[in-house]
Amino acid sequence: MSKNKQVIIKTLPEGKLTEDNYELIESELPDIGDNEVMVKTISFAITAGTRAGLQGSASYAGAPKTGIVMNSTGVGEIAESNNEAFPVGAKVLTMTGWQAYSVQKPESLTLIREDVDPSLYLGPLGINGLTAYFGLLEIGQPKAGETVMISAAAGSVGHMVGQIAKIKGCKVVGVCGSDEKCNTLIDELGFDAAVNYKDPNYRQSLKDATPDGVDVYFDNTGGMILGSALFRLNSGGRIACCGVVSQYDTSTPEPGPKGIPGLLVNKSIRMQGFLVFDFADRYDQATDELIEWINEGQLKILTDELDGLDQAPKGFVDLLAGGNIGTRVVNVS
Amino acid sequence: MSKNKQVIIKTLPEGKLTEDNYELIESELPDIGDNEVMVKTISFAITAGTRAGLQGSASYAGAPKTGIVMNSTGVGEIAESNNEAFPVGAKVLTMTGWQAYSVQKPESLTLIREDVDPSLYLGPLGINGLTAYFGLLEIGQPKAGETVMISAAAGSVGHMVGQIAKIKGCKVVGVCGSDEKCNTLIDELGFDAAVNYKDPNYRQSLKDATPDGVDVYFDNTGGMILGSALFRLNSGGRIACCGVVSQYDTSTPEPGPKGIPGLLVNKSIRMQGFLVFDFADRYDQATDELIEWINEGQLKILTDELDGLDQAPKGFVDLLAGGNIGTRVVNVS
Repeated sequence: MSKNKQVIIKTLPEGKLTEDNYELIESELPDIGDNEVMVKTISFAITAGTRAGLQGSASYAGAPKTGIVMNSTGVGEIAESNNEAFPVGAKVLTMTGWQAYSVQKPESLTLIREDVDPSLYLGPLGINGLTAYFGLLEIGQPKAGETVMISAAAGSVGHMVGQIAKIKGCKVVGVCGSDEKCNTLIDELGFDAAVNYKDPNYRQSLKDATPDGVDVYFDNTGGMILGSALFRLNSGGRIACCGVVSQYDTSTPEPGPKGIPGLLVNKSIRMQGFLVFDFADRYDQATDELIEWINEGQLKILTDELDGLDQAPKGFVDLLAGGNIGTRVVNVS
Repeated sequence: MSKNKQVIIKTLPEGKLTEDNYELIESELPDIGDNEVMVKTISFAITAGTRAGLQGSASYAGAPKTGIVMNSTGVGEIAESNNEAFPVGAKVLTMTGWQAYSVQKPESLTLIREDVDPSLYLGPLGINGLTAYFGLLEIGQPKAGETVMISAAAGSVGHMVGQIAKIKGCKVVGVCGSDEKCNTLIDELGFDAAVNYKDPNYRQSLKDATPDGVDVYFDNTGGMILGSALFRLNSGGRIACCGVVSQYDTSTPEPGPKGIPGLLVNKSIRMQGFLVFDFADRYDQATDELIEWINEGQLKILTDELDGLDQAPKGFVDLLAGGNIGTRVVNVS
């Protein structure tokens, strides 16, 4: 344990991200300071939102930089400790980044409950699950019997949003990018309908799948799918703006959809952006409820695993092209 | 009283509206039916929102039609009555349209209080005032000390929004289309700052006028000004989407601004469309408060009067080009 392996951002993408924007390097492990710990990464999640951190300066993650380790949420084991609250061997959730080891301060660590599989913290019990939970329930405010539409519905957040909406008694329609994903949503996760946005008849299929219109649209994509949702939304509809995956992997984001703000006015629609951190004081309550749903079999988790740190760049490029179903995780050790 | 004068929609505009889209005609007055009344129009308001009714099919006003009287809110006097609740001589607020007389059913009439100038019902006590009141207070939810930005700030709704925001202790910045309007907002209505969006340095001037960012943006325009507001909005900001005047006078509406939905996500912004009718059960409470503010001299009303039914088409074309300050009213009799 004297060397680290890290995937660093070698260059910022111009246009689409490529594997060449990253480099796998070996580096010396630093010493840990007072109260700090060394975390050995078990696995980390690859999520579309981190693409925004490589783009412009408008992201909540700050301006993009090269020469630093690519960031990500991960789970790991304490390998060395100067902090009694986090003894060697304990499992933690933290911002591991794409690397084998990381030095962490206690305030950035969440202890993983011993009765729960650590990998769940990269999906339902981590950022993805909390985002699905608060975005749907607090921003979308669905009522039983209403229709909930979700974009990137087979993604790490989307596939949970749909199931939570079903738990709440809604009719659920997913939008995703392949017929295989559509089948998974309907057959494995109990969605009422799923529509492939790459299908030339997409708009008609969406209309057919939402005969009562749409009351809540959970938007992970922006762009064309947001535009299509605006036309299906009912008066008083809500849009939970969670992410903009259609606009991340480019240096020239599209303009917003037509009908904004005109259709918002005509249909009294509320469109609300949020970050999961807005709800930080309620994570515990949400986690308890998510664990309950998982234990009862009401919430199924789709995980899409890759093995080896060197797989991360390729896995990220592929994820931005829609290659994943569920949460994409890279197992490091 | 056997002939009516009416301005009808002769043709639907292709591109920008022109006076030639309208025709002034003389017609026979119909008889009034059971319970109905004949209203002699005193004056009516010209508002940008009615332009949407001539455009496409997406408006709340339904699909556009030719050969019908142009619609508008107006005040009038009962000239003939089959209804005891509305005796001859009583003053009412109703959808007069652009015409000298109209037959009305009782459910479309609001009696005007005798202690109040009827013209106030076309401004602060009518649709404009109620729109300003509910849009700002219920959708925008401004807190004392926050910065409120308003587009079309010298318009019929905007000039009231700014004053109500001042009453609530906010810092108020108006955006409008001439230096004359900017001066009126600051000197006559007490706005803290006003910025001319036609100025080549508009974006820098807006930045200078909002050193603490913007907490509430009251949007009457959509388009470029909405785009500029998105960049000034603080985290947790609110956008009250009231109208889209930048997009009404065209057959080819622009796409939405860049940054939607990306900036909504990054800054947890709520963007909410509304129609004043959403608050119909609370009009009385709002009217009482608006009358109080007017009587106390806290709310000043700008009215921009034209004389004669034949002036309406030209007045509307000019209003869409930003020619009015305050509520534009046409006096018919």
